[in-house]
Amino acid sequence: MEKLSRNNRIVIITKMIIENPNKVIGLSVFSQLLNAAKSTISEDLLIVREVLKNLDMGRIETISGASGGIRYIPSVSKDEAKLFASNLCEKLKDSSRIVPGNYIYMTDVMFDPKIISKAGNILASAFIDKDIDYVVTVETKGIPLAYEVAKNLGVELITARRDTKITEGSTVTINYVSGTSGRIQQMSLSKKTLKTKSNCVFIDDFMKGGGTAKGIIDLLSEFECNLVGIGVLIDNIGTERKLVDNYVSVVEFYGVDENGEIKMSPSKKFS
Amino acid sequence: MEKLSRNNRIVIITKMIIENPNKVIGLSVFSQLLNAAKSTISEDLLIVREVLKNLDMGRIETISGASGGIRYIPSVSKDEAKLFASNLCEKLKDSSRIVPGNYIYMTDVMFDPKIISKAGNILASAFIDKDIDYVVTVETKGIPLAYEVAKNLGVELITARRDTKITEGSTVTINYVSGTSGRIQQMSLSKKTLKTKSNCVFIDDFMKGGGTAKGIIDLLSEFECNLVGIGVLIDNIGTERKLVDNYVSVVEFYGVDENGEIKMSPSKKFS
Repeated sequence: MEKLSRNNRIVIITKMIIENPNKVIGLSVFSQLLNAAKSTISEDLLIVREVLKNLDMGRIETISGASGGIRYIPSVSKDEAKLFASNLCEKLKDSSRIVPGNYIYMTDVMFDPKIISKAGNILASAFIDKDIDYVVTVETKGIPLAYEVAKNLGVELITARRDTKITEGSTVTINYVSGTSGRIQQMSLSKKTLKTKSNCVFIDDFMKGGGTAKGIIDLLSEFECNLVGIGVLIDNIGTERKLVDNYVSVVEFYGVDENGEIKMSPSKKFS
Repeated sequence: MEKLSRNNRIVIITKMIIENPNKVIGLSVFSQLLNAAKSTISEDLLIVREVLKNLDMGRIETISGASGGIRYIPSVSKDEAKLFASNLCEKLKDSSRIVPGNYIYMTDVMFDPKIISKAGNILASAFIDKDIDYVVTVETKGIPLAYEVAKNLGVELITARRDTKITEGSTVTINYVSGTSGRIQQMSLSKKTLKTKSNCVFIDDFMKGGGTAKGIIDLLSEFECNLVGIGVLIDNIGTERKLVDNYVSVVEFYGVDENGEIKMSPSKKFS
């Protein structure tokens, strides 16, 4: 390959780091792909690092040693996150979303990449310094969000199932009590999924009583793993007592008032 | 904000387009964010466009008119796709993946962002010129892959459920016969999800008899929508007759031989 100019190399470097958040990329990978000396790549990276830092768009860390290289850690500025949460509230407040039983229809939002990729970015930044091994969720609506958080953190996603499947091999199943309905439910994980002693973050679409989160803690303890954080898109503040009390959310939901209006606002962490 | 250098603007432009595949971004968005004239942004974009095109990493389209701007269409070169498929085969061939019933455990792969983001990139490129409105899947294992395809195509993901949920409102449910097991199964979609007359792509983890794909066609016809393409990560070639015959896959699976070896290779489209 012929030599590329600096601004051409910068396009490729930026593309690669954005597509591989939290993945260590050796300087020699860039050096070979771009047909340039490592010292030249280092100078390129310095430019990319400075502008991302100045615009509050994430940071590039240097990892020294034989397996060294650089790692891009995405982040979203507080202002951008707050604006995103406000826009999401507006979208969700639409009264045509109310379905019988005063539930809010939000399936479209949970499966919309334009929304979920940014929400995953925001939630991941809450756990970036916690040395996470896995992101855990339970099927179904939280999967894209949990996937984005895992991608941002550079780790695998583990999805607990409501029932057991033949393709999972041996599984561990636990029973748990849904915090609000009081109903007994099940969740299962293949024995092949989790390495013991791992640190996990639980990501879900909606936090109500916290029963599912409690169930995840029990399930993880069967694998001798720790839950070190919880993140949800929507926190149902209206539910009085939560079984867990330490979690982050993007928006807070206060219920539907007597006029049929949905009460929702950006989470307090943005205020 | 102070003026940025060309190199700095190129970092931000590249980041924005990579994070928003297939989304039309107006020149004025870049112009405001980067505090630069539109003519300057156009020159920056020309550089980004050329290098992406030369390295077979996708293309930038210009959309003219009042709502005009540019759109980044990701792509993966044939060589890169083939290498990815070969590496995936090696990973999946590990005989410890065989679970009772001669099924292959591949849940870890289906939820690994490093693998699925690239696979989604590859599958999306098969449908890029087909004017797709939605990507459709059925829970659970195919969701991250379908999500990535949707993200690459710049559209929403629609996920059919195996059972109906109160939070979905009114739903349409169909029965279908699994192509290989012959068992009757159900899938449901909320009536709020799909606009009529939409073009859809069905994405799943595994294609066996094609019964699920046939079910999706029936479900979409209830919404007067068309299935215009099918993509799967793994095509089970071992199953003789498929209920559908037009689809793309990344790898082909030929079954487990008498020595307990998994037979798998990159799909023929890469050869």
